[in-house]
Amino acid sequence: MKNYKMIVSYDGTRYFGWEHQPGKDLTIQGKLESVLEEMEAGEHPDAERRRITVIGAGRTDAGVHARAMTCNVLLETEKTEAQIQAYMNRYLPEDISVNEVKICADRFHSRFKATGKTYRYTLWYGASRPVFDRKYVTVLEKKPDVEKMREAAELLTGMHDYKSFCGNPKMKKETIRVVDTIRIEESGNYIRIYFHGNGFLQNMVRIMTGTLLEVGYGKREPSEMPALLEARNRRLAGPTAPPQGLTLMKVDY
Amino acid sequence: MKNYKMIVSYDGTRYFGWEHQPGKDLTIQGKLESVLEEMEAGEHPDAERRRITVIGAGRTDAGVHARAMTCNVLLETEKTEAQIQAYMNRYLPEDISVNEVKICADRFHSRFKATGKTYRYTLWYGASRPVFDRKYVTVLEKKPDVEKMREAAELLTGMHDYKSFCGNPKMKKETIRVVDTIRIEESGNYIRIYFHGNGFLQNMVRIMTGTLLEVGYGKREPSEMPALLEARNRRLAGPTAPPQGLTLMKVDY
Repeated sequence: MKNYKMIVSYDGTRYFGWEHQPGKDLTIQGKLESVLEEMEAGEHPDAERRRITVIGAGRTDAGVHARAMTCNVLLETEKTEAQIQAYMNRYLPEDISVNEVKICADRFHSRFKATGKTYRYTLWYGASRPVFDRKYVTVLEKKPDVEKMREAAELLTGMHDYKSFCGNPKMKKETIRVVDTIRIEESGNYIRIYFHGNGFLQNMVRIMTGTLLEVGYGKREPSEMPALLEARNRRLAGPTAPPQGLTLMKVDY
Repeated sequence: MKNYKMIVSYDGTRYFGWEHQPGKDLTIQGKLESVLEEMEAGEHPDAERRRITVIGAGRTDAGVHARAMTCNVLLETEKTEAQIQAYMNRYLPEDISVNEVKICADRFHSRFKATGKTYRYTLWYGASRPVFDRKYVTVLEKKPDVEKMREAAELLTGMHDYKSFCGNPKMKKETIRVVDTIRIEESGNYIRIYFHGNGFLQNMVRIMTGTLLEVGYGKREPSEMPALLEARNRRLAGPTAPPQGLTLMKVDY
């Protein structure tokens, strides 16, 4: 068995997220695993069918997309890296793409070894509509004050306890993370927020985006951010922005 | 009644094309007309409901997209241009967007006054897959020889009788057109072919693309293009490339 590192893109629109869940068939992890199990079964028709586990760098929520999710998987196959990629892209649905397959060190674990992640949240506003990327943006009623959002974003970066921005109320583990940059770019009718950090709690990017939007619409002041972090109370933060605007862009190792 | 010029984008994936057809409900023209009829009916509840006709600059085929289709329509409304746009974008499905609404001269006719059109055909090749714009590209098995395609494209430009590239076998009208440029751009895994001309016959851009691809795969030589034009015989040209890679980019006046 060799350990394979893979880089995968997906349009999360019709999935229950990355991770398989009881009773919910349609997950990215589930799709990848079924195709790989089929592949192995095809190569070893007499062997007992083996359950394959694809380990992802993180768990994206239902409806969230990825440009470059990194994952790894132990495979028993005679195929070359390129052949595995070709097989997977042939049998996966068209909203999932395997962009890279590489044999990696046995000790490589896509989640434990990840040192950072970049997420992008895409907002759109205007009198027309974003027809061609409507599944990948969140449409705003009107333009928010981006300068105010930048001020607030600056105050949300650093090493903090992000419990106020954690969507899991039962979270027992450590909620301290380092978010080193939140960069907000404007281009035409788009506002794109890039988050980079060593890790993110459940829904954290979406709750930060929802909070930044409240700042952008004057419902909160940037100066309230330190107290919000301090409070460690999810109910004091803004709403969870919709999943479709969010994309995992890159995982660092 | 005033004449309104409109610029419209649409994702043609689920439509039978621009023009309404007997028994086929789902057309862009049909969607625009229903929304405008509703709008007028709402403003004049006591008047007899009027049948509205939206005149498009051209008829895109089923599955073909538009970034900027121009159309015009006579309306009886008190609404401002911005209000008409807002109303339409509120009630149209999310795969159609009205980008501009402007009162124009009574004599403006979006089809008869059009002096040129730009179409783009997008091709994609590679070992991965184009997840995020999969509805707007045609995926190729392997990379074609783009230099050869450019040579052939050059020989297809000019003023010619394009009957060999006309998808309508019963076409009785003039088949002479001027195609002044066919520009092929490469960027990453994309090959984009831009066609500009004074008008295009039915399926013409798709048949030209299918023919250029045969050149790109060595099934034809660029030098065969003049004889192909000369022949005025659809059967001698290449296949009609699939609709999803095609987008109407702009209409000139």
